[in-house]
Amino acid sequence: MPLPLQKALARLDQLGLVSDSPELLVRTFLSPANRKASELVLDWMKELGMELSHAADGTVCGILPGSDPKAKPILLGSHIDTVIDAGKYDGPLGVIAALAALETLQQEKTTLTFPVHLLAFSDEEGTRFQTTYLGSRSITGPLDAATLATKDADGITVAAAIEDHGWDEGSTIIRYAKGECRGYVELHIEQGRVLEEAHEACCVVSSIAGQSRLTIKLTGRADHAGTTPMPLRRDSLTGSAECILAAEALAKSQPPLVITVGKIQIHPGASNSVPQTTIFTIDLRHPDNAARCLALEELRQKFSNIAEKRSLGLHWQPVQDNDATPCDPELTNQLLESLSAVTGSRRSLASGAGHDGVAISKICPIAMLFIRCRDGLSHHPEEHASPEDIGTGIAVLTHFLKSLTP
Amino acid sequence: MPLPLQKALARLDQLGLVSDSPELLVRTFLSPANRKASELVLDWMKELGMELSHAADGTVCGILPGSDPKAKPILLGSHIDTVIDAGKYDGPLGVIAALAALETLQQEKTTLTFPVHLLAFSDEEGTRFQTTYLGSRSITGPLDAATLATKDADGITVAAAIEDHGWDEGSTIIRYAKGECRGYVELHIEQGRVLEEAHEACCVVSSIAGQSRLTIKLTGRADHAGTTPMPLRRDSLTGSAECILAAEALAKSQPPLVITVGKIQIHPGASNSVPQTTIFTIDLRHPDNAARCLALEELRQKFSNIAEKRSLGLHWQPVQDNDATPCDPELTNQLLESLSAVTGSRRSLASGAGHDGVAISKICPIAMLFIRCRDGLSHHPEEHASPEDIGTGIAVLTHFLKSLTP
Repeated sequence: MPLPLQKALARLDQLGLVSDSPELLVRTFLSPANRKASELVLDWMKELGMELSHAADGTVCGILPGSDPKAKPILLGSHIDTVIDAGKYDGPLGVIAALAALETLQQEKTTLTFPVHLLAFSDEEGTRFQTTYLGSRSITGPLDAATLATKDADGITVAAAIEDHGWDEGSTIIRYAKGECRGYVELHIEQGRVLEEAHEACCVVSSIAGQSRLTIKLTGRADHAGTTPMPLRRDSLTGSAECILAAEALAKSQPPLVITVGKIQIHPGASNSVPQTTIFTIDLRHPDNAARCLALEELRQKFSNIAEKRSLGLHWQPVQDNDATPCDPELTNQLLESLSAVTGSRRSLASGAGHDGVAISKICPIAMLFIRCRDGLSHHPEEHASPEDIGTGIAVLTHFLKSLTP
Repeated sequence: MPLPLQKALARLDQLGLVSDSPELLVRTFLSPANRKASELVLDWMKELGMELSHAADGTVCGILPGSDPKAKPILLGSHIDTVIDAGKYDGPLGVIAALAALETLQQEKTTLTFPVHLLAFSDEEGTRFQTTYLGSRSITGPLDAATLATKDADGITVAAAIEDHGWDEGSTIIRYAKGECRGYVELHIEQGRVLEEAHEACCVVSSIAGQSRLTIKLTGRADHAGTTPMPLRRDSLTGSAECILAAEALAKSQPPLVITVGKIQIHPGASNSVPQTTIFTIDLRHPDNAARCLALEELRQKFSNIAEKRSLGLHWQPVQDNDATPCDPELTNQLLESLSAVTGSRRSLASGAGHDGVAISKICPIAMLFIRCRDGLSHHPEEHASPEDIGTGIAVLTHFLKSLTP
């Protein structure tokens, strides 16, 4: 096993032990464990001879200069915060694999023409403030007032957390202007089952899917389950069942569209009462914005027809609409060439989950590499990527960095 | 308006005010209001010149002798307990309408050949002990040990409630042996919408439906709503939606079968997670036992096919099976003749809800008359039957009693 991979695996284990809880893995924005993780990453960057900096919010940066002083930097990295009861791969693997790629290049005595800025973001999951990408958003510009005023469970705002508990001593503002960087490239576990089903170690990401979230309420009539013949019923649950199947059929007919009903509640909710109201959620994602909006409209029409046919009231309540973030075609194609050279595969996949690249796409092109993870599991202590797959990912990233040098 | 009807409407209002709560109508087994209601009914029976008795559990009986000393008695009546936040018709109407029918006969100076025993049962709803028909079961034989040991919310058993707080002074055991009575006839609000939809005031009851209750659990796999393509999902909720629609279609194809899913719960129940498990209830009723069992088996086969097709685990958990109670053909036909004579209708309907007749059918033939109620509403303060319909019901009952005299 190559030394950089050995070190990478050891570092994953080491970082996986840095937690705010003795029982489970959790590191949230500006928590003691998050600060300790930042310091650990700085130590590893120092080993590589990088020029170090850190922001008050805990995001750290290591710079490796290139041979061409005029070349724009490439940004590499990922986040080092976690959800509650997390696994050790989601986030840290992107930072540690980038370090391993750079170490591989050093071993080979390859000098890149362009500088590499390796970033470890202090917040992507939004566990503490329920607001994502705090770390990566900060490198594109100051956080907006609404975000700064967001409170955690203890009533502490983002602004107060940074002001009172930030990592002030020696901190700098890590920030990039639009057009200043050549691109941002991130390696991340897939968090899904596509690679596992395809028996492939890695793939490139074509786009980070857009997401629409809705709450749907169907209103019928509460009736006695024993005394109300079927034709006289206006059952909100059987109507919702028809909507749920219509949503599933629509998504199946338009891949890579995905639609999920993840929550459902009925009233009165007694075994001997016909349900008067049913409320359920819709999570609809597609990598193409136009296709997402079209699917949403189609779904609305279907629900409307079902409600009308069954004499049910329909309340269609949009909750959130996030546009898709396309990956940069040129950078992604370059990454695909490297993937093909290392693995023989040319698979690309839209990411259904969000990533730091969504925030960073405001200032430069982005590209991503996905690594297979066991059972598609993430945000779970049993989250796992195999050493072989991690090695393959590092090899693709190394090949890619070399290929960017003209 | 005939005087007996006027009195009946006033008595419904008067009894509707007898409650254990100042805000809502509630009278439970052996509660102060239930005792007061029993005493009120005894007063009304006394006005009619009935011979009075009461049981320790609060059930009261008034006897009007017939002209033939050898004739078997006819039992009339219903219950005077209520659910919590009840309406004033469910139960009391049956007692008060029977009183009005007997008053009408007295006005007409008609003497029946057979004795009439008018019963007002102290418990049918089972509000206090969650065990139905305490009053009517007691007139068929002693309560079994399991029932006597059932506890209320305060830990008081049925036995202790009767022993410590029963209406002892002057009480007798009101009980009938099998074959001792000619039949039990009860007037009750429909608690459904069939008469309202048919624009008819009354109908006879063909049978009290049997009921099967089940809990169904479908188990799939929790997955990320964004990163799991539709074909890779094992979604327990979309599978359950298919089951719910299959149940609805089955019931619609086999009237008077009714199937209701009244409760549903999913896990993990997050808008961005594919539901791993879905648990829902089935309430299936049919007036014919063989048809109910056949429908249950058909449903099981359908669920099994759906689960298999979708690679879901299926747990089919029976909770309760109550056989149907057929009404007596001869007595019911006599009641139908009276219905036809008074209203011109010959409608009969299976009761989807349970009634005291279920318990009393152990000792004698039963028959029932349903009165239309507004919006099919029962167990609700807005429960309502119109004075006209109540008058029609009293007229049918009066006609019926006269028709039983040879």
